[in-house]
Order: sequence, then structure tokens, then C-alpha cells
Amino acid sequence: MARRSLPLSKVYGLLEPGPVVMVTTARGGRPNIMTLSWHTMIEFEPPLVGFVMSNRNHSFGLLKATRECVINIPTVEIAEKVVGCGNSSGATTDKFETFCLTPKTAARVGAPLIEECYANLECRVADTRMVERYGLFVVEVIQAWIDPTEKNPRTIHHLGSGNFMVAGERIKLRSKMK
Amino acid sequence: MARRSLPLSKVYGLLEPGPVVMVTTARGGRPNIMTLSWHTMIEFEPPLVGFVMSNRNHSFGLLKATRECVINIPTVEIAEKVVGCGNSSGATTDKFETFCLTPKTAARVGAPLIEECYANLECRVADTRMVERYGLFVVEVIQAWIDPTEKNPRTIHHLGSGNFMVAGERIKLRSKMK
Repeated sequence: MARRSLPLSKVYGLLEPGPVVMVTTARGGRPNIMTLSWHTMIEFEPPLVGFVMSNRNHSFGLLKATRECVINIPTVEIAEKVVGCGNSSGATTDKFETFCLTPKTAARVGAPLIEECYANLECRVADTRMVERYGLFVVEVIQAWIDPTEKNPRTIHHLGSGNFMVAGERIKLRSKMK
Repeated sequence: MARRSLPLSKVYGLLEPGPVVMVTTARGGRPNIMTLSWHTMIEFEPPLVGFVMSNRNHSFGLLKATRECVINIPTVEIAEKVVGCGNSSGATTDKFETFCLTPKTAARVGAPLIEECYANLECRVADTRMVERYGLFVVEVIQAWIDPTEKNPRTIHHLGSGNFMVAGERIKLRSKMK
């Protein structure tokens, strides 16, 4: 997939609709993947994102140590892999190998992009003050990539207990909102 | 609409998919409505939600002063009203009147429910330490209501610049995730 750099001012439009994402981290040459959907935009530009990662997750230690990650956005075509990553732990599983996902070298962080995801956001941790209390990391997106051929990404949205909503039709309304 | 109380343990499933929500506040008998979609779950139970509200929004002052709000979840049927609320300011507009929305007395907070929304979450502000820096309020959901007849709510999800995605098909996957 030929990726194109996406202006940072457009990043919010990818995360604001609330898709399930796959956060990649890496340390000592070993990458990991965590599936999560507790995330929110916090600022437009530079784009700040808040997401919740528990200290029971293997990725938590990697993120705290390296302060770098990639937020990868999957579509329904790889939903089984997304759920597989959510059901397993990086402490005992090489998720890229187990779920046949392809790591791709990032431009500005040590964590890899997931080739099978249509968008990838390279991030640096910007604020850890809410981590102890809530597991809430604030990260800054420093480089964004998108597959320009994906005009209507069918993202997945978690409803709980293994139920997901798949992105449906698009509508345009007379909004003055950014 | 006959509303039913929803167990607090199920609240996360309403917000995790990332719908646009309408936050109501009230002070001195004057209610307001703010449309937003920068929100995330922070804890399952008691349910904690984080959302971003700028100090340029009229609702900001009401929320800071009263420490109470309702998070109302609309569907595509009232999308024009949702966007109308997002395009106007409570400083100069009575949004309930202007957009023909019906305020309904809440059980435990002073802010009203919006009758036309299929779910309503009564909230108390739990943490304001991230408000000054990020406009990020942490609220606790203390009472949740749902329309039990709405089995497949077609929520709307903001893609930026007036473009919205409408919730599509639902799928079930073998997830161990909560």
C-alpha cells in the first residue's frame, strides 16, 4: 500500500468518529500491538490524543519506557485480527506473527506502523500526569499517514462484549463545526 | 418515550463507539445544550467519562458552576437539530426552543434530559484538574436512562467539516474484551 503523508490538521477527523484502534509500541526490537477504543481528541493542532491503557496491559510498560507509539486504524476487513490482538497478551504472544500482520518502519518513532491499517499516526507521549490515576496518556501526533485509495473506510466501533458496529453511510450537514 | 433505567455497568457500551453527544447543563432555570464528540470512557464502574469543553463555550461556565450535566445521545433522525445546536451559542439562543427539543426533568441532577435522545446519562463532575490545561472534564455517570424500544440506534459520528458517518451494520466477533 502506497501511503501518503496526511496534514496534521486533518488528524482529528480520523479519530473523532470513535473507531477501534490498534496501538503499536516496541522495545529492544520487539514490537507489540494493543487494541483499544477508549480514546479522544484533545486538541486540533498540534493534534493531541488522550487514550486509556491499563498498567495490566503489556503495552503499558513499553509505552512508559519509550514514550513512543503508533495509533493504527483498522477496517472491518481485518476485524478478526483486531479482536485477536485484543484477546491475547504481548507478554506471551508475538502478535504480528500470530495474526499475520506486517510491521513497517515508522518515519519518526521506534514503534512500527501496521501495514494492513488504512491510517497510521506516529505519536510521542506528551503528558503522563493522568496515567497513575486513570491510565490516561496524552500523546502528540507528529506524523500521520493515510492510504489515499481508501475513500470510505469501514471502521469498526466497539459496543461491548464482542459486538461491533461497522461504519455505515456518510451524510453531509450544514455544520459550522470544525 | 418510556425510558428505562440502564445498569451503570452497561454505560460504556453507549459511549465507546464514539457517537456525537449533546451535553445539557442548567443554571438559574436556564438550560443549555452543547454538541460535542471529543469524549472517552475512562472507567467501567462507576462509569467515568472524560470530555473536552472549551472555555469559549457557553456551557463551560454552567458546568464549572453547577458540576452537573447530562450526556444525551442522539440518532440520525434528529441530526439537523444536533448540528443546529453545534452551530449556535447558548449565550444568545434558547436551544431547546429554537430547535424544538423537549427538556425532561432528570432524577438526580439539575440539568435536563433531552426527550428526543434515545439515551441519557446523568453526570456529576468528578475531576477538574485537567480543565485548565485541556478543557478535559472527568464526570461520573450516576444515573443512566435508555429507550428500550431502540434496538439499533443509528448514532452519528463526526468526520469533520460537517461530514458525518451514520452507524451501520452490527457484527459479533469472538471477543474476550469487556
